[in-house]
Amino acid sequence: MESRPLDGGDWMKENRYDDQVFFQKYSQMSRSQQGLEGAGEWQTLRRLLPDFNGKRVLDLGCGYGWHCIYAAEHGASSVTGLDISEKMLAVAHKKTHYPQVQYLHMAVEDFDYPAERYDVVLSSLALHYVASFEEVARRVYRCLTPGGVFVFSVEHPVFTAYGSQDWYYDGQGNILHFPVDHYFLEGQREAVFLGEKVLKYHKTLTTYLEGLLSTGFVINHVVEPQPPAEMLDTVAGMRDELRRPMMLLVRAQK
Amino acid sequence: MESRPLDGGDWMKENRYDDQVFFQKYSQMSRSQQGLEGAGEWQTLRRLLPDFNGKRVLDLGCGYGWHCIYAAEHGASSVTGLDISEKMLAVAHKKTHYPQVQYLHMAVEDFDYPAERYDVVLSSLALHYVASFEEVARRVYRCLTPGGVFVFSVEHPVFTAYGSQDWYYDGQGNILHFPVDHYFLEGQREAVFLGEKVLKYHKTLTTYLEGLLSTGFVINHVVEPQPPAEMLDTVAGMRDELRRPMMLLVRAQK
Repeated sequence: MESRPLDGGDWMKENRYDDQVFFQKYSQMSRSQQGLEGAGEWQTLRRLLPDFNGKRVLDLGCGYGWHCIYAAEHGASSVTGLDISEKMLAVAHKKTHYPQVQYLHMAVEDFDYPAERYDVVLSSLALHYVASFEEVARRVYRCLTPGGVFVFSVEHPVFTAYGSQDWYYDGQGNILHFPVDHYFLEGQREAVFLGEKVLKYHKTLTTYLEGLLSTGFVINHVVEPQPPAEMLDTVAGMRDELRRPMMLLVRAQK
Repeated sequence: MESRPLDGGDWMKENRYDDQVFFQKYSQMSRSQQGLEGAGEWQTLRRLLPDFNGKRVLDLGCGYGWHCIYAAEHGASSVTGLDISEKMLAVAHKKTHYPQVQYLHMAVEDFDYPAERYDVVLSSLALHYVASFEEVARRVYRCLTPGGVFVFSVEHPVFTAYGSQDWYYDGQGNILHFPVDHYFLEGQREAVFLGEKVLKYHKTLTTYLEGLLSTGFVINHVVEPQPPAEMLDTVAGMRDELRRPMMLLVRAQK
């Protein structure tokens, strides 16, 4: 076990998804209703995933379990999903009909990351809730087998820097551009997501990529997903996602 | 030789530095007057450079030749610097007193990149003037020896996306934030630099990093330099550089 706490010791591990109002709103999103196919980044993320056949998989911040289910359906021999939210896991349990999938009610920071236990570690849009990426990278590296793969998506540093995660508008409410500020001031941001305040941690691109490299990972892919053509005019606001990078997808290998 | 032109066939290779007014203004910048020590990113870039001892070095867009001179002073056996600007090269010739350094008056796009000829390829703040990064990556890869290193700095995709490369101000002229727009629309931007219009090419982070990876490079480092502490209050505007990422430094290996 590491002696240094993953959360830096003085940060809050916020469990926003167990808030009834927030959970209700989240459950209405297309990624919640339709699963992977409803997530704008899925077609890009899928191309970064390894062959799951016979693999032991860990999913950090598994939420509804969509990625755990996908791994099981694609041959994973065991899948462990962690999430801090009981409400999310309750839904995951209901959706999941594979005995090889287990869910643990636990923060990403509190898992013990046993040495060389997993072949694949996934994390979808969860690590921007964790204070220290370097610590995550170190622990993930430890729990992967040699050659093992770490695939994750996070909110893009451009998206998290300013804090509000909203466009900058003119007086008539038209989008002018997306604002960037405080880029090199890493740490807590109070964003508004689904009309509710959510605590996130801004990190620079340097922190993500050098964090992986200094830990010993080889970087296989770094991709900013573009909105899929078929969603541009059918999902509200999707066309505007051509104007800013909202997510960063990374595949790294031990 | 590649059949596909490096500049995409229909782009302009602009030679702004041979414009008398622009050249005069550029020559007043602290990076022009003081050389490497006057460049905010130098302390970060230097840490990414390999040992030059006995190495054959190519510098794409060498300008005044500061990096060529540095390589020669640190033991490079030969250094070739390319630049499209005669005025820049005239200054480089005057500054350079090492017979192992040669300068070629040539655009980055027009060099022939002989196979496995160089151990190190450098490029400082030049490749955002070139239309296709993938083509650069392919040609650099070809001309490097196995294990050879490619170190470059470019303007950060956050900095090039909007186009004007200027802050967004309130009515009183105070900086509000830095604007990002058209991020996934790569291509020409007409920026204002030193009060003059300059043609540049915006590329996404994905294009830079996946361009290297798909060519076969291993990524060693990806760093967004922060302004050095000693320049924060002595160089005009430097403190604001904590608010946005202006440059991207990359080290990759064949």
